[in-house]
Amino acid sequence: MISFESDYIAGAHPKVMERLTETNLESLSGYGSDPYCESAREKIREACECPQAEVFFLVGGTQTNSVVISAMLREYEGVIAAQTGHVSTHEAGAVENTGHKVLEVSQTDGKIAPHVLRRYLEAFYQDQNHDHMVFPGMVYISHPTECGTLYTKRELQDIHEVCRSFHIPLYIDGARLGYGLMSRESDMSLADIAHLCDVFYIGGTKVGALCGEAVVFPNGSMPEHFITTVKRHGALLAKGRLLGVQFDTLFTEGLYLEISRHAIDAAEQLKQIVREAGLEFYRESPTNQQFVILEDSILQWLKDQVAFSFWEKYDETHTVVRLATSWSTTKEDLDRLKEILADLPNI
Amino acid sequence: MISFESDYIAGAHPKVMERLTETNLESLSGYGSDPYCESAREKIREACECPQAEVFFLVGGTQTNSVVISAMLREYEGVIAAQTGHVSTHEAGAVENTGHKVLEVSQTDGKIAPHVLRRYLEAFYQDQNHDHMVFPGMVYISHPTECGTLYTKRELQDIHEVCRSFHIPLYIDGARLGYGLMSRESDMSLADIAHLCDVFYIGGTKVGALCGEAVVFPNGSMPEHFITTVKRHGALLAKGRLLGVQFDTLFTEGLYLEISRHAIDAAEQLKQIVREAGLEFYRESPTNQQFVILEDSILQWLKDQVAFSFWEKYDETHTVVRLATSWSTTKEDLDRLKEILADLPNI
Amino acid sequence: MISFESDYIAGAHPKVMERLTETNLESLSGYGSDPYCESAREKIREACECPQAEVFFLVGGTQTNSVVISAMLREYEGVIAAQTGHVSTHEAGAVENTGHKVLEVSQTDGKIAPHVLRRYLEAFYQDQNHDHMVFPGMVYISHPTECGTLYTKRELQDIHEVCRSFHIPLYIDGARLGYGLMSRESDMSLADIAHLCDVFYIGGTKVGALCGEAVVFPNGSMPEHFITTVKRHGALLAKGRLLGVQFDTLFTEGLYLEISRHAIDAAEQLKQIVREAGLEFYRESPTNQQFVILEDSILQWLKDQVAFSFWEKYDETHTVVRLATSWSTTKEDLDRLKEILADLPNI
Amino acid sequence: MISFESDYIAGAHPKVMERLTETNLESLSGYGSDPYCESAREKIREACECPQAEVFFLVGGTQTNSVVISAMLREYEGVIAAQTGHVSTHEAGAVENTGHKVLEVSQTDGKIAPHVLRRYLEAFYQDQNHDHMVFPGMVYISHPTECGTLYTKRELQDIHEVCRSFHIPLYIDGARLGYGLMSRESDMSLADIAHLCDVFYIGGTKVGALCGEAVVFPNGSMPEHFITTVKRHGALLAKGRLLGVQFDTLFTEGLYLEISRHAIDAAEQLKQIVREAGLEFYRESPTNQQFVILEDSILQWLKDQVAFSFWEKYDETHTVVRLATSWSTTKEDLDRLKEILADLPNI
Repeated sequence: MISFESDYIAGAHPKVMERLTETNLESLSGYGSDPYCESAREKIREACECPQAEVFFLVGGTQTNSVVISAMLREYEGVIAAQTGHVSTHEAGAVENTGHKVLEVSQTDGKIAPHVLRRYLEAFYQDQNHDHMVFPGMVYISHPTECGTLYTKRELQDIHEVCRSFHIPLYIDGARLGYGLMSRESDMSLADIAHLCDVFYIGGTKVGALCGEAVVFPNGSMPEHFITTVKRHGALLAKGRLLGVQFDTLFTEGLYLEISRHAIDAAEQLKQIVREAGLEFYRESPTNQQFVILEDSILQWLKDQVAFSFWEKYDETHTVVRLATSWSTTKEDLDRLKEILADLPNI
Repeated sequence: MISFESDYIAGAHPKVMERLTETNLESLSGYGSDPYCESAREKIREACECPQAEVFFLVGGTQTNSVVISAMLREYEGVIAAQTGHVSTHEAGAVENTGHKVLEVSQTDGKIAPHVLRRYLEAFYQDQNHDHMVFPGMVYISHPTECGTLYTKRELQDIHEVCRSFHIPLYIDGARLGYGLMSRESDMSLADIAHLCDVFYIGGTKVGALCGEAVVFPNGSMPEHFITTVKRHGALLAKGRLLGVQFDTLFTEGLYLEISRHAIDAAEQLKQIVREAGLEFYRESPTNQQFVILEDSILQWLKDQVAFSFWEKYDETHTVVRLATSWSTTKEDLDRLKEILADLPNI
Repeated sequence: MISFESDYIAGAHPKVMERLTETNLESLSGYGSDPYCESAREKIREACECPQAEVFFLVGGTQTNSVVISAMLREYEGVIAAQTGHVSTHEAGAVENTGHKVLEVSQTDGKIAPHVLRRYLEAFYQDQNHDHMVFPGMVYISHPTECGTLYTKRELQDIHEVCRSFHIPLYIDGARLGYGLMSRESDMSLADIAHLCDVFYIGGTKVGALCGEAVVFPNGSMPEHFITTVKRHGALLAKGRLLGVQFDTLFTEGLYLEISRHAIDAAEQLKQIVREAGLEFYRESPTNQQFVILEDSILQWLKDQVAFSFWEKYDETHTVVRLATSWSTTKEDLDRLKEILADLPNI
Repeated sequence: MISFESDYIAGAHPKVMERLTETNLESLSGYGSDPYCESAREKIREACECPQAEVFFLVGGTQTNSVVISAMLREYEGVIAAQTGHVSTHEAGAVENTGHKVLEVSQTDGKIAPHVLRRYLEAFYQDQNHDHMVFPGMVYISHPTECGTLYTKRELQDIHEVCRSFHIPLYIDGARLGYGLMSRESDMSLADIAHLCDVFYIGGTKVGALCGEAVVFPNGSMPEHFITTVKRHGALLAKGRLLGVQFDTLFTEGLYLEISRHAIDAAEQLKQIVREAGLEFYRESPTNQQFVILEDSILQWLKDQVAFSFWEKYDETHTVVRLATSWSTTKEDLDRLKEILADLPNI
């Protein structure tokens, strides 16, 4: 059975596995102090055009979000996020587990509009009871969003400007950052991202690594003693090499972006195939996640041949499902999907 | 200047002060083990018609909410509350500070509709990703609500039934419970409240006490070693007598309900005065909190003569303010308000 | 039965009760913004000879410790305390509940020796693995200690100097501060205390108040938005007047120190009575808590006539008990104790 | 330079890397639901002779400790551990970060004596103030300990019996479990371990894996919705296969124990070499960690040729260092160490 279930169905990109194997028996010191971590940090700084950036490697996305957010918030602050934000919905309350509230604001296609953000912050400070409320201490956005959509450079500039005027940092969850940067609709480079926020992470788990996310503090404002904070959250990997070697490989000769582009090309072909089969999209997505509305009997028929994931009920008789491409999607996967959809039953 | 700023502008009811003074020099043991606490517990059990109820005295409302909620939730659970719920908005994230998310649901006039609750819970368990989400582990409602409104007995029965069918406890924040029970629109007694939830508190701070809230577990299901949990939250009062004597007095000869009725009578007169002055209510409230729309120049004029509190902006030129009566509101306060409003400037 | 069970067996000092009653029906705003709180803050500033001090009123000691400590520690830090410190032993883990470790160091008679503190801090920074350890971020001492003992001015200067050289604040738990200042062995004034630490609290609960502790930041270094942090811990009292009026009274015409001296005088007489009865002290205490070794059959005989509290087992057949005097101890209490001990059975 | 710096200086055992590479491009579902995880769980059940055991894979040791401990403690409980326990000292307060206190008890060579444990628990319940203290809710031991020592079967039985009589679970941190089981002094099998505790983990990171620890609940008492709790701690690995494939390989044909025996054989040779060089051991260790006392000028001379780790200062002129063998230690490493030590300068 072919699978478009998620963008983490395969292991690591073969070049990553190769490097892990080649370096496997080297004696290296732990906790991120090895030369592969150092080299990876340097390559990421270059790719971000931020020579002063600080880079820290963590294992997974939810871990990264809760560690970074709690380390940067003051005690009386919470983090603003879209109601559809990953931290709002699908992290089992990991941010709240650190004692901080996620301040949910309304969204459109997974995005927070700059004026919505500004209005929220203005209203907070105008409220005469705000001393009894959670102070907004950070803004969290994901790019691409959980809905597969992208902020434009202009939108990101506006959001960053709002954050600056309220003196709170902007944090970008880049779990699928590569797929955003390589989208045909993207008008931003990695350096743009780095210049338009205060902290972000470059997702590895969904873009070619076995595991791992690279947190980047573009202006060198990593919280003091961050390694101890990471340890305290149980998030410090003993064999830091596992992360260092992977990111070093992904940031050698542009591999990260190259394999991201592959996923985008596959997504465009998938869109074409789906459209030709007469199926309807739930929303336009310019990245690797595609959301398709299926009549429920079609869904039953399809799920024995193609793995995909449940998104949400659309109405009584239809369901939204997600099909994701990734660096590991093959021509064979797409050809087979086309064949299967050619046999789509009439209803 | 007269004040309708809140329902906690005065100290304690004079009978409460008297008893505190009379008993002041008695040698009593601490932490709630004194005879006044025991007597108060017994009187509350009787008033609730729940002989098996367990009663624990705490100091304030936010403290009570966060201690009770965190003690009753399991690690992976959050508490459902209305978006306007006190725990959602005006407790500075005290629930999140205990590591638990407040799961906000939509509301109407501060109330959660039973069908909205049921739909939320059904949707949670239907969601195939709910293992990655915060489990709903309790329902929090306030009665009266933060908007001054009341649940009907039928609504409360329905909500309780939904909770039971999902095996989660129902918790009622009764910060202003007396004012709810004595409202002319109330169709419930204290015993009804006790029988239609799993835990609730009888507010003292806003109803005649200097401080203090009585948490009632009607079915004797107080969490094991609750006193240690309370201590751990810094919420165990050394001189428990301060709470015991107050609640013992409030629950002697029906004082709690009597002074609550006084506040409701005052509120009805206040409504009449406000209406006669041609001012508009923001919403109908059958309890002691009244929400009035003021043109902003009127607001400026009025605030030098009457203390009230800001509620929210209504539109560009109008503001919603709250006027609260309480057990301490006097005939003089109301007469003076009438005089002042008689001079309301034209605009 | 007479009681030396604790220093919180009575209500408030009669003058405090009087003022509470006199001011009871005044309309005052909440949360510490009333004029009594302001006046109390001003009087405390004067008594501390710290015109720039910031003062915040909280309800109880454990609450004060956990709120102040967690507000002042950074995420990766813990608080150093004696193994016998109140935060180490008898607060049910309230500090840990805020996510921070209590770093217990050895003590002598409840006191941390300056050189022990210095050695602990030096060892921490010399340890090559200290990035994997909890950073010492504050020093907590109690004065008087839980053992009734006192730091000398010289010791406090030395401890403060150690803290300064490691750039961490010194916090003094003054739950029984008055009894320390009025001890015949004390060589410090309230102003000395204020000048030799970064934050401390003046205990009210055990020294004349129904409840309440006054946290003093002598150098005006109260954490930003502290009121919101307090609210978040459920520790913000709605009727702040209850604390304001009490501390205003206690700091009027030296009442706080006057009633503290009364307790010390009573303690000296109690020591005399105990000594004359041939009973042995567990340790010398110059303050209001006295620790006496009782043979177990004596203990059984005595406890029906005098209330005291269990301290610890001394050996197989003896127990250490604590007898505490306070502002409320009367001549009659002491006379009766003398009579009772005159009948001490032989064993 | 040769390295005995730690037991995590190399990547994974070559067979593990091979299997990761072979399975790398298979499409697998996430979060531990893949067939390799299932197979690994089954093999671990067999190796433990516990058909009903539940097994959950986590990434690292500190993470495992804090997730398991916090999931199993009730709110008012803490975990008993040796003062030298990993959770007490070198996890940056990760347990406290979950709100729970580590209740440190005295130890001998890293081990808690059964009678010390019993006395601690008895004293707790005899203390009349224990409602104000953290309840002991679990016992944590490490086997081998942080000092390289081992519990005997008899000691473990006694500790387990104490735990049972106080109705609290026993948790064994098996970060180096293989090295304990294969020690020449061990009188226990993996099945013995599984039958003498309530939960333990089989360390992968230090015994052949890139990362990963297998938590085993021998009696199937894994906390309800544990996967959600794990997610909430940011500890749920998206590509669970990374852990499943590794443990599946380690538990195929006894690889885990085989490579552990290799490390023990290497440790015995290392001990011989060190002894022959005239160096002194700080303590006898029957496992893979060896603690050697070095005169400080020797230490300086040696550290340019051999990597080892600082343990603690022994006295003014001597230091304790740790040399660790592991599955990856080679004959060449040992031969080279012998050569180097043959040139040990005189002092």
